[in-house]
Formats: sequence, C-alpha cells, structure tokens
Amino acid sequence: MPGSGTAPGSTWAPSGRPIRFEVFGGAGERGAPTRARRGRLTLPHGAVETPAFMPVGTNATVKALDPDDLREVGARIVLANTYHLYLRPGHERIARLGGLHAFMAWDGPILTDSGGFQVVSLSDLREVDDDGVTFRSHLDGSTHRFTPEDSIAVQEALGSDVALALDHPVPPRASGRARVEDAMRRTHAWAERSLAAHSRPDQALFGIVQGGLEADLRAESARSIAALPFDGLCIGGLAGDETAAQRRAALDVAVPLLAADPRPRYLMGLGSPLDMLDAVDGGIDLFDSVLPARVARNGTLWVPGGRLNIRNARFLDDPRPILDGCPCRLCRTFSRAYIAHLFRAEELLAYRLATCHNLTFTIDFMGRVRQSIEAGTLHEFRRVEAARRVPDDPGNAVERDRQAGAKLR
Amino acid sequence: MPGSGTAPGSTWAPSGRPIRFEVFGGAGERGAPTRARRGRLTLPHGAVETPAFMPVGTNATVKALDPDDLREVGARIVLANTYHLYLRPGHERIARLGGLHAFMAWDGPILTDSGGFQVVSLSDLREVDDDGVTFRSHLDGSTHRFTPEDSIAVQEALGSDVALALDHPVPPRASGRARVEDAMRRTHAWAERSLAAHSRPDQALFGIVQGGLEADLRAESARSIAALPFDGLCIGGLAGDETAAQRRAALDVAVPLLAADPRPRYLMGLGSPLDMLDAVDGGIDLFDSVLPARVARNGTLWVPGGRLNIRNARFLDDPRPILDGCPCRLCRTFSRAYIAHLFRAEELLAYRLATCHNLTFTIDFMGRVRQSIEAGTLHEFRRVEAARRVPDDPGNAVERDRQAGAKLR
Repeated sequence: MPGSGTAPGSTWAPSGRPIRFEVFGGAGERGAPTRARRGRLTLPHGAVETPAFMPVGTNATVKALDPDDLREVGARIVLANTYHLYLRPGHERIARLGGLHAFMAWDGPILTDSGGFQVVSLSDLREVDDDGVTFRSHLDGSTHRFTPEDSIAVQEALGSDVALALDHPVPPRASGRARVEDAMRRTHAWAERSLAAHSRPDQALFGIVQGGLEADLRAESARSIAALPFDGLCIGGLAGDETAAQRRAALDVAVPLLAADPRPRYLMGLGSPLDMLDAVDGGIDLFDSVLPARVARNGTLWVPGGRLNIRNARFLDDPRPILDGCPCRLCRTFSRAYIAHLFRAEELLAYRLATCHNLTFTIDFMGRVRQSIEAGTLHEFRRVEAARRVPDDPGNAVERDRQAGAKLR
Repeated sequence: MPGSGTAPGSTWAPSGRPIRFEVFGGAGERGAPTRARRGRLTLPHGAVETPAFMPVGTNATVKALDPDDLREVGARIVLANTYHLYLRPGHERIARLGGLHAFMAWDGPILTDSGGFQVVSLSDLREVDDDGVTFRSHLDGSTHRFTPEDSIAVQEALGSDVALALDHPVPPRASGRARVEDAMRRTHAWAERSLAAHSRPDQALFGIVQGGLEADLRAESARSIAALPFDGLCIGGLAGDETAAQRRAALDVAVPLLAADPRPRYLMGLGSPLDMLDAVDGGIDLFDSVLPARVARNGTLWVPGGRLNIRNARFLDDPRPILDGCPCRLCRTFSRAYIAHLFRAEELLAYRLATCHNLTFTIDFMGRVRQSIEAGTLHEFRRVEAARRVPDDPGNAVERDRQAGAKLR
C-alpha cells in the first residue's frame, strides 16, 4: 500500500481563502507504508515546499540573525510569538508601523502562534476559565486578559500569513485525563469562537487538535477540529514531556482520521531532525522549534550523526570547518578553532555564526527529507540517519537544552 | 601658506620594506594653514586611503560583525589587540592555524598594537622595569612577563601587516613630569630593542612617540623616535584624560618636527569624529578606537550633529531610519522603532545593526574628511560639522561611554 495518508495529487485551495496546499503525487514508499507527503503551501507572502521547518522569531527577530541571514540559511517561513509581541512592543504599535512583515523586514510568509502555549508556560500567574486566560506578564508583572477573540485581534493586527486559534495546552504526560479532557473541550469551544472572530481576508487560520496522550480524546479532538472550516490543522500538546513512542502513537490516532483531509498538518514545537523525520513519516507537513537555534547559542553544533560541543578544548586547535561542504556562513568562512575561540571570548559573532550553522543544517535536513519522499526512500533515509547517531545524538539535545535553558539568552 | 606638513607629493617606499605611503599633492587649505594631508598607505594585504579610521577587533573579531559586515561598513584596515590574543587563544595557536588573517578570515590589512596600553590599563598587577613588564592576566590571574622582544615575537606570530614597538604609556594629565619622562626614556630604549628584535620581512614596524603633555618631552620623543628606522610613527599617550586643547598642543609640538618626514602618522585611540577631524588638521593620517562600536552596543547611534539614544521611548513609534540616506544595513532595512524594540528586548541583532551604523557613519565621515582635504575646504567642513553639534554631541559620548563601560559586553 502506498500509505494511508492523503491520496497523491490533492489540492486544497478553498475559494476566497488566502491559502493553497498541493500534495504532489509521489511514488509511495518502497516496501513499507508511510503517511509522509510532499507538498507546497502557498500563502500571501510566498510558497513553502513541505515538509518544512519554520525557525522561530519570538520577538520579531530570529535571535542573532537578520533577514539576509534567514534567506541564506534557507528559511522560507518563520514563526513569531503572539504572546511576546503583544506584550512588547505591542501589536497595535506594530500595526501602526505597517504590520509585522514591514516591522521585521521579512517579506516571506509568517505564521503566528495563538499565545496559548506561552501564557501557560511563561507567565507567572495564570487563571484559565471558559471565557479566556488571565495572566501576569513575565516582563513587568502586569496583569492581562486574553480571550480567543483577543488572540485573533492581536494576530490580525500583526498581519501574519497564518494565525492560530487560541488553545489550552497542558503537559501531555504530567496531566491527568480529567485535566486533558477539560482543556480539550475548552480548546474546541475556543476554536469555534476564533473562527467567528476572524475576519482578515489575507490571513489563513489554523485550528489546533489537543487531547494529550489519551487515544480516544486525541481522536475526538481531531474529528472536532477537522469538522470546522479552518485553513489548516495543528497537532498541539506534543513535543513536550512525552516519549517518542507516545508522540508517534498520538499521531497514529489523529492522522488516519485526517487521511482524506487535504489541509496542511502542523506539529507544533518539534525541532530535532530525527524526531521531525519520524513525524513526517506519521503524516506531518510543518514544524517549528527554537531548539536548533537555542542549542547553537549554547555552543552545540549539529553534524550528521551527532553534535560538536564547541566549548570542548580539543576544538581550539582544529583547523577544519564544523562540517565539510556545509554552505553556511560559519563553515564556508571559519575553522572550528575560530568559533571555539569566539565562544570562549563570549564574542557576539559566535551566536550568529552558530545559529546560521544549526538552522542551515536543520533546513537542509528537511530538504533531504523531501527528496527522500519524492524518491520513495524515506525509510531508507531514516535508517541511514539513525545509524549515524553515534557518538552523540542531536535528538537528545532536547534534554540537555532544557537543563541549560536558564543560562541562555 | 599651504601648510607646514609634508610637502605635497612625497612618497615613502623604503627599499625592502613592506610599506608604501604616498602623500598626494593637494590644493592646500584656502585661507588658513593646515597640516592635513591626503595619502594612500599600501601594505602587504592592500591599500588604505588616508586619513583613515581603523575599527578595533580586540579578540580577532570586531565585536558583533563578520568580515562581510566589515567590508560593508567600509573598513579597509582593522586593528587587533596583541595583549588579548596573546592571552587568548594564544599567538602560537594562531600561527599554527595560519596566522591572524586566516584565523579571522580578514584578507585586508591588519595593524596590531604592542600590548603596552592593555598591560597598563587592564591587568590587575603590573610591575614595569627597564627590561619589561610583569603583569597578571585579567582573564585568569596568571602572571606573565612581557619584554619588547616578546611583543615583537607575538606580533610576528600573529602576522599583522603592521606591528608596533612596545611602549610605556602613562595617563597624560594625571602623571607628573618625572613619571612621564621616565616612561618616555623607557619607551625610547624599548623602541631600539624592538627594531633589533624585528625580523619578519612582510610586516612593517611603527615606533611610538610619548612625552605626555610636556612640550619639551614630547619634542624630544618625536625627535628620538623619528631618528630610528621605523616604517611609520605613532603618537601615543593621548586620547586619554587630556583636553582637546592639550591634545592639539601636543600635536603642534610633535608634527612640525616631522614636517619633512614622509612616514605615516598614527594617533592611537581617538575615535570621535570631530576629534579626529581636528587631529587630521594637526597632521594625523591614521586613527583607531573602540568608541563608535562600544557606544553603538549601548544604544547610542551617531547622526550628523549629534546622537540618538535609541533607548528613549520616543523612538518606539518612529518609522524613520536612523539616518536618511545612510547606506548601512540598519538604515537601509529597518526603522528606529524596530531597533529600539530590539534593544529593549536585548536581542542580539541589535548590537550588530547598531555597530554597522556607527562604523559606517565614522568611516563615511573620514571619507568626507578626505574629500575636504582634496578640495582644500577642511576648515569649512569643520565649521559646518561643528555647527551641527546640537543638541547632543557625539564628542561627549566618550565620557558617557566610560561611565557605561561596565555594563557593556
């Protein structure tokens, strides 16, 4: 069987909506089924080949990079955080300045999240009720109220290509069933309110599937969100504290229910290359994560089969580039010895160069994933990449990164 | 009179030395004499139009910029600090890696200082005797011994285009005559030892004139250093705690003694545009300073007639560029509102963009100085620039910067 995903050749181009998503007819996977699909997502500010990774520009800047750098690392779409921009510099200010694209001088597509995740994870105080969320700013302690309608209004002011409906995310593993179910029902109600509130014609709106790791709830959420007239579907509540097997199990519940659905599928928050590859195999088209850039700023540079901790003293005398043949600004210009020196001297250039490398690596990896889908060799590609995972596994960088998070700027 | 400086049209191209310095025949200044001169300094890695400003790359990186940025801001030569590179990552390591040009991927000329100033200003403990300096590293407290021969050896290992002889600088105003004289005589002895120790044929060697603010000592030092076969002459011990009038008086003692001397003259440490203009008028060809870049990282952006403190709240809503028509990366891409936002969010991109602007401004200013010399209108240019110095004077940024220094990275 050629996979239980969308039939090859589907196109999602709803009349009057600012989105077009084509899934190409592919060869299918040789030997084993896959839900992987090769597509092209066209938004008001441009087209994105999928599966695609979106770098995160939290404060209207992908940390340490400018728009030329972003283009150079191969980024075609970036994510910006509604919560952060609402608090600083303010969505109304950005609107007065011509919108988020003009503000950050990025003329490609932008997706904004709903703010739901940050309200839950960053703010000091939060009270979630059925109407919305009351939270305290992590910047100045001021109190704010955020409803689904507020989130839509903020994102419309920002003018992103894709807005997301406000959801109520909960940690998938640490939350009991009752809490997961409660948050899911609230997310569904907020999804309908978000659709009702949304009016900007040049902005797509995606809904978010929740339901944690409970198979029946995940299925119910997938059916409920898919029944609504969103332009695309997000899989939320993963890329958190769950295992890879639990994540895959959740995808294997949700995606088959969407098999005939032509809309793009976006798994929020995943950024480790092999994790993304597995999720592509499970039917995902879009990803975002701060991970590659965050670990880069901590001196962890990704290479096939592992990572280099550039703070290790052995690199101080290493004349080689981080990765032979890598087209990034770091690898084509400087030695391991130089970037190791910059990190030890805490020189600002270190953070930019390391970020350029890890984002180039991640985006190039997704390009190879797309080629493998086209060639029907995704599983073979997966085997080769997984066999490279010695001695030091980029996938595990997530854990290390969590521990190091507090030290990062 | 057309000025009491070098006669127009002189060329300094000593046989077998890696330097050529041409002073063009100019129109002379209309009305009033000037020692300003328009020249071209040719070194192993390229030519530099003078008068010129050299950005400072302390740790083998001009903070926040990469070599493409440096070329974009118009830099043609950079300074690197021998003291810092000796301590970290080590000059022998840099030599093994192919030298400083390859290490930092800068293929233009590099001038290294002697380390004398940093030994005196940065190290915790220092004991200066006639043989050399014993000092404690500001990085790890380790104890080091630095002689004139050591400084030459380190700079030859780095492979800069221009090395400087080790000097013994003292604060010009805070030091008594005896201390100034003692340091000057030591500097003269060290100059001869530096010349004797220097052997690298592809590296020029400049000597340093000291003598503080005492006219007779400054004159004696100028005569003594000029009598030695250096490739160029530095004016040291200024750009410190002296007034502008005291600095000009010191130049007016030293430079006339060098009037017939065809070698380039470099005033160490000066970086405020109007201060440099005055020193050009006094006969100086080369400058370096961390000032434009350091104040940029603190949010002070230079414009004709003053500066913008971009941390001021009024810029958060200002859609204009920092400076209309400025070709820098910041001005041609982003608004004042955006850079103000980046500084408030402490985003890394802020420091790079602000540095690009202030270095572009400074280097463009020196370009206009050169045009004014060619046109014989330097004093008119000075009058116009000085009249612009309202409401907020870049020259005073030195003081503000000193106070803010501890907060800067």
